[in-house]
Amino acid sequence: MFFASDNWAGAHPAIAAGLSANAHGFSTAYGEGELDKAVYRRFSEIFEREVAVFFVATGTAANSLSLAACNKPGGIVFSHREAHVIEDECGAPEYFTGGARLHAVDGALGRIDPKNLERALGRFVPESVHAGRPMAVSITQSTEAGTVYGLDDIARISGIAKRRGLPLHMDGARFANALVALETTPAEMTWKQGVDLLSFGGTKNGCWCAEAVVLFDPGKAREMGFLRKRAAQLFSKSRFVAAQFDAYFRDGLWLETARHANAMAARLAAAIEDSAAARLAWLPQANELFAVMRKAEAERLQAAGAVFYDWHEPHGFDSHVGKDEGLYRFVTSFATTAEEVDRFGAMIGK
Amino acid sequence: MFFASDNWAGAHPAIAAGLSANAHGFSTAYGEGELDKAVYRRFSEIFEREVAVFFVATGTAANSLSLAACNKPGGIVFSHREAHVIEDECGAPEYFTGGARLHAVDGALGRIDPKNLERALGRFVPESVHAGRPMAVSITQSTEAGTVYGLDDIARISGIAKRRGLPLHMDGARFANALVALETTPAEMTWKQGVDLLSFGGTKNGCWCAEAVVLFDPGKAREMGFLRKRAAQLFSKSRFVAAQFDAYFRDGLWLETARHANAMAARLAAAIEDSAAARLAWLPQANELFAVMRKAEAERLQAAGAVFYDWHEPHGFDSHVGKDEGLYRFVTSFATTAEEVDRFGAMIGK
Amino acid sequence: MFFASDNWAGAHPAIAAGLSANAHGFSTAYGEGELDKAVYRRFSEIFEREVAVFFVATGTAANSLSLAACNKPGGIVFSHREAHVIEDECGAPEYFTGGARLHAVDGALGRIDPKNLERALGRFVPESVHAGRPMAVSITQSTEAGTVYGLDDIARISGIAKRRGLPLHMDGARFANALVALETTPAEMTWKQGVDLLSFGGTKNGCWCAEAVVLFDPGKAREMGFLRKRAAQLFSKSRFVAAQFDAYFRDGLWLETARHANAMAARLAAAIEDSAAARLAWLPQANELFAVMRKAEAERLQAAGAVFYDWHEPHGFDSHVGKDEGLYRFVTSFATTAEEVDRFGAMIGK
Amino acid sequence: MFFASDNWAGAHPAIAAGLSANAHGFSTAYGEGELDKAVYRRFSEIFEREVAVFFVATGTAANSLSLAACNKPGGIVFSHREAHVIEDECGAPEYFTGGARLHAVDGALGRIDPKNLERALGRFVPESVHAGRPMAVSITQSTEAGTVYGLDDIARISGIAKRRGLPLHMDGARFANALVALETTPAEMTWKQGVDLLSFGGTKNGCWCAEAVVLFDPGKAREMGFLRKRAAQLFSKSRFVAAQFDAYFRDGLWLETARHANAMAARLAAAIEDSAAARLAWLPQANELFAVMRKAEAERLQAAGAVFYDWHEPHGFDSHVGKDEGLYRFVTSFATTAEEVDRFGAMIGK
Repeated sequence: MFFASDNWAGAHPAIAAGLSANAHGFSTAYGEGELDKAVYRRFSEIFEREVAVFFVATGTAANSLSLAACNKPGGIVFSHREAHVIEDECGAPEYFTGGARLHAVDGALGRIDPKNLERALGRFVPESVHAGRPMAVSITQSTEAGTVYGLDDIARISGIAKRRGLPLHMDGARFANALVALETTPAEMTWKQGVDLLSFGGTKNGCWCAEAVVLFDPGKAREMGFLRKRAAQLFSKSRFVAAQFDAYFRDGLWLETARHANAMAARLAAAIEDSAAARLAWLPQANELFAVMRKAEAERLQAAGAVFYDWHEPHGFDSHVGKDEGLYRFVTSFATTAEEVDRFGAMIGK
Repeated sequence: MFFASDNWAGAHPAIAAGLSANAHGFSTAYGEGELDKAVYRRFSEIFEREVAVFFVATGTAANSLSLAACNKPGGIVFSHREAHVIEDECGAPEYFTGGARLHAVDGALGRIDPKNLERALGRFVPESVHAGRPMAVSITQSTEAGTVYGLDDIARISGIAKRRGLPLHMDGARFANALVALETTPAEMTWKQGVDLLSFGGTKNGCWCAEAVVLFDPGKAREMGFLRKRAAQLFSKSRFVAAQFDAYFRDGLWLETARHANAMAARLAAAIEDSAAARLAWLPQANELFAVMRKAEAERLQAAGAVFYDWHEPHGFDSHVGKDEGLYRFVTSFATTAEEVDRFGAMIGK
Repeated sequence: MFFASDNWAGAHPAIAAGLSANAHGFSTAYGEGELDKAVYRRFSEIFEREVAVFFVATGTAANSLSLAACNKPGGIVFSHREAHVIEDECGAPEYFTGGARLHAVDGALGRIDPKNLERALGRFVPESVHAGRPMAVSITQSTEAGTVYGLDDIARISGIAKRRGLPLHMDGARFANALVALETTPAEMTWKQGVDLLSFGGTKNGCWCAEAVVLFDPGKAREMGFLRKRAAQLFSKSRFVAAQFDAYFRDGLWLETARHANAMAARLAAAIEDSAAARLAWLPQANELFAVMRKAEAERLQAAGAVFYDWHEPHGFDSHVGKDEGLYRFVTSFATTAEEVDRFGAMIGK
Repeated sequence: MFFASDNWAGAHPAIAAGLSANAHGFSTAYGEGELDKAVYRRFSEIFEREVAVFFVATGTAANSLSLAACNKPGGIVFSHREAHVIEDECGAPEYFTGGARLHAVDGALGRIDPKNLERALGRFVPESVHAGRPMAVSITQSTEAGTVYGLDDIARISGIAKRRGLPLHMDGARFANALVALETTPAEMTWKQGVDLLSFGGTKNGCWCAEAVVLFDPGKAREMGFLRKRAAQLFSKSRFVAAQFDAYFRDGLWLETARHANAMAARLAAAIEDSAAARLAWLPQANELFAVMRKAEAERLQAAGAVFYDWHEPHGFDSHVGKDEGLYRFVTSFATTAEEVDRFGAMIGK
């Protein structure tokens, strides 16, 4: 019963097979091989327009390089207070940009509240050097709270950014989970709503290590080539990432694994709703679920082999958590089985 | 006939199999899984002392983080003029250190000449802030010229560094090739001669993506953990690197693949020595070989399917290269076959 | 009626005279001259212990270099939400540290609330690389809100910092104003309460350009020498800063100018309290004063020649500001005259 | 007999008087006061076109910010091996740019040899990320060797830079000394020969602290505003720099002080040429002079009160320096007197 994180899972068998199938033979290094190029084209098909694709090693790298591509002296990035770029990257975005600031914007359950964004941006006087200046907005889809921005939400935020000439970045470490939750297309969820740069994650959804920066303006690709290399993120045997994405996209595998993960979260949610021992903190929309239960109960479950984490209460979470209670996070993945979920369900009882 | 680079090869079948064998199941992310820990212990066995090991995505990252671990304001790193850290990393070491300088030291055929190092270091007046200050020495083993530092060479350079309180870094992107060339042990080639930090490369020698920073002073490990994460080099599914190293070290595979690559270079050298159309620029010691031939001949060979690169003439190379001639680099790997070499030999004739 | 900022004033006549008196003759450059050294000793006398002193060009430089001296990969500095290092330095602290983060801590009227600091620090798990790690606490004395930390306040904050091994930095751009407000000694207001690094400002209090980093642990001086030079903050004709500080400290001039500035703020406060047209937002403690008045009234005063700024309502300011009203900042200095204050008093009436 | 450096001199009486004259009264801070603006206009007059001017604290800052304004990921700046940006700024240019590299180009007596520049640039393959990429060329006028680039020399170097799309920076720490040596105009010595950014120094030529970045494309001014503030180089009481430049330019003072310094160097050169105890290493063109003499003689002179520095032999200096001899640098300034030079002349004899 591994609900600690979707990155505790291994690789989907089809991904593993794809890697093995591409292990032999010689091919041009540094992302210029035939398989690399085929995968770049595949990205353009999937996004229904020409895009520039840069494989990188980690989601943190994808985010940090995306923001570095927007860099300005004195620049400030606006993202949700609980965003991964703020909470979980050890200052990598600041480091990659040589000191840009991440400005925390509040909003309920992991989503930036447009009014707060407007207000935060409104405090900056154009051309005044003292306070620095806005340089980008970054949203996470799906969010750290397991929620999803609707297309309208994205459009609204991108509208605010665009009116100030700011690019919009999307951290899509769990892009596929959000995509299938919204039952929309990659194009609709990104550039059609004004997203300019995307961190496209495959690792959490069944790959071993497959992350990419996707630029919707391929004109920016030249700089990204230097940014990536300088950041030590250019794989020599790049084909091994290409091989993963090749398998990932084949026959819609990526959508299937995401649907499965989301379905497992929904199944877990149902079990929790049925239980007297725990309750949902809020409704999950993708593959992360948050529950409240007594600490003693959580410890009992953990001792019995269920792996999940304590969690900080996010901004805008106003359900009552009692003194003896805690908030806990459960993450499902392509590798989570219904049997596993049901076993957990049985443990927490009705 | 792929002699462009050892990173044009794919993965050794045993590495590929090791990856597949570890694809399933759940394990702790971020380098804390059981397989990761087993591999860390294996490194300590191989180096005959406790070492701290940090997997990273690229050799550039291993080098840049190693140097970042030595960082000082105004710091200067001394490496060979043709070292990868200077010539081929797009400024990553400078970027990772926030602006340390790489000072080029000359020496014949890829090896720092100790006298030049002594002279370069001697120009810095301790405590004077104007010129900056030495902070590390970095050597490459095997070198960019396909040569190898002998154990005495390393000891001599480390002695110079130590007398000034400077750590010695070794870029071991082709560590195994040098190791088998010298017929020595990992311990002898590193810390026993005074190496403090090592970029240990597995990628060029049969892995897909397996690079590590090895610290001979495990006390420095704490800072490296933060340095690596901040540089976006901490893999979530770290086990996939561990699985590669696990297979790499099993039954001496890594030594076998390196011996094979070196043997193929020697076989190629013999073919060139026998040929009237080309001549060795200098004797290869590991798996890189440099030859002089007429440009027209090189083009003919390339047109016939041989892949190899033009090369800049390195410092201290005083063989005569005629007006119509060029210098060319050939790299062999675990995947180079004798048949391939012989085919090339037949093409250049006797 | 110039109440815009204390840096709109020029130089005190004694400072100007001191500069002229030291204009001729030759002296060792880069801070090694006789006058420089005499001033360093004077600092040690004033602080009643050996200190290391580094002149720099701006208060922003003093703050940024102080924080750079505490730098750690993934490091986070805790300061008040409205602190100058966050609000007014265009990201210089982040830039100087290569990407450290400034974490905003709330507290009423410009002062960090120790409970909030404790809570903010408490969220960081030692040794976990993901969230980064605390590296320093920074307080401003006097604060951006014109308030002053009492000695106990400083001790409490330094206690929290020390228990976590964090150095405490004080931004003393208005050090003298706070000092005379508390009627204490430089030693009592700094190292005796646990301050480790101080930005000591003379510019706002009557100098032209006299700022210094003061290190209470002179053992850290060596690194600061390199940090300062690398940041292009080492004056060649350093004596011109020394000459200012020499005059500044002579016969207690600096305390006298600070007392005058504070007295002018108190006089202005009295005029505002007497007026029906404006009210004090809160009581001033040093030389900055905040008042609420109708916007139309503010415009009238500005049109009549009074110079002062609109201000953002700070955290913890819960006085009611009406729809037609604004919050305004008034700053006094050594150059503010009673006549000027009274003229303004007459304009706002009773 | 102070020949150590022109920054050992104090301030010219007219500069000191200008400062005092502007000490009183209130004026807008941060470079927006009336005097600041008048001085900006004066710069435009002097350079015969609109320029953007940014006062900074040090020559190192002017150089580093100029190069930061040209910054590119993986960028490389080409300057002379002995240039101040390489030899004497503790890595500030690398730091300000977040890791750009300074590539040393050789050339006789402090001047870049255009052929070497061409060759160095020619090694970079456009669009290849591995080696990084050229981003600027920087020359020093007058040079560290006391020589001067002729207008044709500058034009030739700028032509090479322009053909590759690179901006040309001039380090003019001793701008005036070169200007009067060439008997040309500021416009002719800069933008008319293709200089894009200039570090304009006043400190060494009679000011206390008056350095500026001058941009010949005022369109770049917006970014420089943020770059300067972020680098903690924006003076609050900026008028004090303006006041120095105001006096500096008045009635051609700056040209007069430079002519005097150069004349004193020529007088010193004549004394050395007449002496049997010393010989000129090469002919001085501005206010720095290099001489060879026996070490014992140098020590005798120093003991007798002459202050001058030992110097490294520069590239391209092929005069014979005997085993018992040394190379020594002498710098003259506005404050050097003929009497002082003659006294030294008497000491070295005929």
